[in-house]
Amino acid sequence: MLTPQQIQASLALYVQLVDAGDVDGILALYAPDATLEDPVGTPVHQGIEAIDRFYREGLGRSRARATLEGAIRATHNGYGAVPFRVELDWDGRRCAIEVIDVMEFDADGRIRSMRAFWGEPNLTMRDL
Amino acid sequence: MLTPQQIQASLALYVQLVDAGDVDGILALYAPDATLEDPVGTPVHQGIEAIDRFYREGLGRSRARATLEGAIRATHNGYGAVPFRVELDWDGRRCAIEVIDVMEFDADGRIRSMRAFWGEPNLTMRDL
Repeated sequence: MLTPQQIQASLALYVQLVDAGDVDGILALYAPDATLEDPVGTPVHQGIEAIDRFYREGLGRSRARATLEGAIRATHNGYGAVPFRVELDWDGRRCAIEVIDVMEFDADGRIRSMRAFWGEPNLTMRDL
Repeated sequence: MLTPQQIQASLALYVQLVDAGDVDGILALYAPDATLEDPVGTPVHQGIEAIDRFYREGLGRSRARATLEGAIRATHNGYGAVPFRVELDWDGRRCAIEVIDVMEFDADGRIRSMRAFWGEPNLTMRDL
């Protein structure tokens, strides 16, 4: 089980990897049987292949930037919550999303589940 | 089902009520059969009576203050995530906790579940 400090380090790295558009680096943080729900309320992506597609479609050629927006909260039973802002090109527009990702880590220190909390009021868009 | 904007308003009010130490106001936001886990990884408080005890023990005479720390994230299926900082007297010391609460709302707009994400690295204490 990761300590809260290890969870904080892993999630700080996650935000850096999103900022760098480093999909391979992001995928290395995930367990093979992980799940991803982004945003919460949409269908869950099951397994590393589906998660791979999600990030490549979302981050590939999107000029993504990500900025941490406060302390990473981390529990003693393997959960972390990270507030951040992501900007990316999407459908011909520049989007900014204020998001909080809640991650559960497994005993090996890999992400078992990711749930991204955001909705329409957290999204701003402008034409490119 | 609450809209994301209604969830944001409810959670902004929640932070104000914690800041005011208004336990009755807080309890009015909860469903009778709600659950509360604070911090995540500790035993779940089941039902409004247990939740009432939790808040009265935590906020009663604690000189609690709460400050929002960024945008309230809200989904289209009844979830909100609110980053904030709470300060309170506890066991003869002044504690500051950086926390992210994730709330699920029911069809009547009341809180069905509350999970508070924080751990030891999010807690600072000083003697009174």
